[in-house]
Amino acid sequence: MTSGPVFDVEKELSLVEECIQQAIRSDESLLTDIARYVVGAGGKRIRPTVALLANKAVGGKNVARAVQIAATIELIHSATLLHDDINDGGALRRGKEAAYKKYGVQNALVAGDFMFVKAFAIGGTFEPDIVDLTARVCTSLAEAEIVQKRHSGNLSITRDEYLDIVRRKTALPISAGARIGAILGGGTPEEVEALASYGLHVGTAFQIVDDILDVVGDPAVIGKPVGTDLKEGNMTLLVLHALNDGSERRAELSSIIRQSGKADPLISRGLALIRESGAVERARVDAEHYGFLAREALDGVRPGPYRDQLSRLADFVVRRNT
Amino acid sequence: MTSGPVFDVEKELSLVEECIQQAIRSDESLLTDIARYVVGAGGKRIRPTVALLANKAVGGKNVARAVQIAATIELIHSATLLHDDINDGGALRRGKEAAYKKYGVQNALVAGDFMFVKAFAIGGTFEPDIVDLTARVCTSLAEAEIVQKRHSGNLSITRDEYLDIVRRKTALPISAGARIGAILGGGTPEEVEALASYGLHVGTAFQIVDDILDVVGDPAVIGKPVGTDLKEGNMTLLVLHALNDGSERRAELSSIIRQSGKADPLISRGLALIRESGAVERARVDAEHYGFLAREALDGVRPGPYRDQLSRLADFVVRRNT
Repeated sequence: MTSGPVFDVEKELSLVEECIQQAIRSDESLLTDIARYVVGAGGKRIRPTVALLANKAVGGKNVARAVQIAATIELIHSATLLHDDINDGGALRRGKEAAYKKYGVQNALVAGDFMFVKAFAIGGTFEPDIVDLTARVCTSLAEAEIVQKRHSGNLSITRDEYLDIVRRKTALPISAGARIGAILGGGTPEEVEALASYGLHVGTAFQIVDDILDVVGDPAVIGKPVGTDLKEGNMTLLVLHALNDGSERRAELSSIIRQSGKADPLISRGLALIRESGAVERARVDAEHYGFLAREALDGVRPGPYRDQLSRLADFVVRRNT
Repeated sequence: MTSGPVFDVEKELSLVEECIQQAIRSDESLLTDIARYVVGAGGKRIRPTVALLANKAVGGKNVARAVQIAATIELIHSATLLHDDINDGGALRRGKEAAYKKYGVQNALVAGDFMFVKAFAIGGTFEPDIVDLTARVCTSLAEAEIVQKRHSGNLSITRDEYLDIVRRKTALPISAGARIGAILGGGTPEEVEALASYGLHVGTAFQIVDDILDVVGDPAVIGKPVGTDLKEGNMTLLVLHALNDGSERRAELSSIIRQSGKADPLISRGLALIRESGAVERARVDAEHYGFLAREALDGVRPGPYRDQLSRLADFVVRRNT
């Protein structure tokens, strides 16, 4: 990861970068430029890191295949970011101008398709069950966008509905990477399930922390303004907590959430209400809980240095500030 | 095909429809609705028809696999249409409101991704060389969008550059379907190459006729207004012919092409100039030529009723008015 602790998959991660750079080469240099801009934008590489560590934790020796699946997953993630930014109108991504702003919506849309295809060109070389799982991850990502939008501004969304969105958009992709990494590494069926479970929990913790950082993060560190979720009407765990703290804040926060085209002062007021409600602290407890479940899942994996690193990764995910 | 002659793959085409309908099922009914709207919009099904006929022409007996690849290709085509319409702002598609107008840009964008994924979920079950070819088709489609946009309004585009765009956006996808159909059908290497070549030529003829219909088509029959290419600055073969007829029309047509945000009267004037130049007739000769090359390529395929139908299909493609 470019920020945060270093895990013992640095060599493999640089092979993942090489694999991605090779995959996105095109005669049409604009496509390569856009793809490079997005994947090179200093992401945390959490997805490939989990896949690679899971692979090594079960004794995986065939680095090349693990690297390919990690590259597939990161390419899918990057393609999704490209299209999501178009859809959400997010102007900044990882501290840089969003690709669609820099290159235009039309080019960014096509470049997203291009990256999906390149991901599948690599992913499609695997066994049918892995291809199927990869496709299910992508389906899940598309569905998550629709579900999230359907629930936009839905004040009566339940915690389960929130968790279902998180599962589809963040937890399942990370879990699938862990699962495939473990399968390719020759893990036992128990280990494969344990690592898939680890991925689900780590992914959930990751998303909850994302929600937290959108309220109390440092824009200079997270690379985008805070309050994006509130602006878009995304019902995050923090909003759920704040709406259900039994105080009179509910009415004011509800009316802010329901307004379309919220101006900055309104966003600031909404964030203040969320912070005052204690939602941040409650969400941190939730994130810690999923971090704990993730570490607990590792009990099903043979002991060793890579299992320990997965445990450290779960800690990092919960405690990160970027 | 829903319009035009019927070929002896009606049963298989209905299996293709079933395969597609099954693939696009989702818990999120909005995704299914959008996908159904796009694939159900009465396309000509030229791509699956070519793939299925090629399969049968070489004696293919495993209908199921041929049907799957035909469904893959049609799904990719439909996903591309969805995203292209967003990019081009085309309000009508096959006589119906474009999907992004009906369902919103955000939902249509995600639905396009969803359809790509579903295509790959099916296509990814094939042998590596077929997966690779399918991915190359998708890459080619993305590149074609970029190249076409790069050449938008480029008055000095050459015929070769035009043909390169056609190859990427129309001819290669149709050719790949023919090639894969022939491979799955157990064709000889010579037959596979012959059918791939047939597909390239038929695809080129198909695109040239598309260009023609955008100038002289009946909007009620083609399901969209004429002059779309001119409006978007697409350099079609007809524009190339009209610009290079040695007459004084060039200056006026050039100035129309260069204007952005062309109003309808200007489009009408541009179309009139193209028609007066004799470009339509010259393009028809070109289309006939590629139709001829397609039929000639069939010499490399064993004689039989399906080879004859491929020949008839080439005729139909050249003579169609929709």
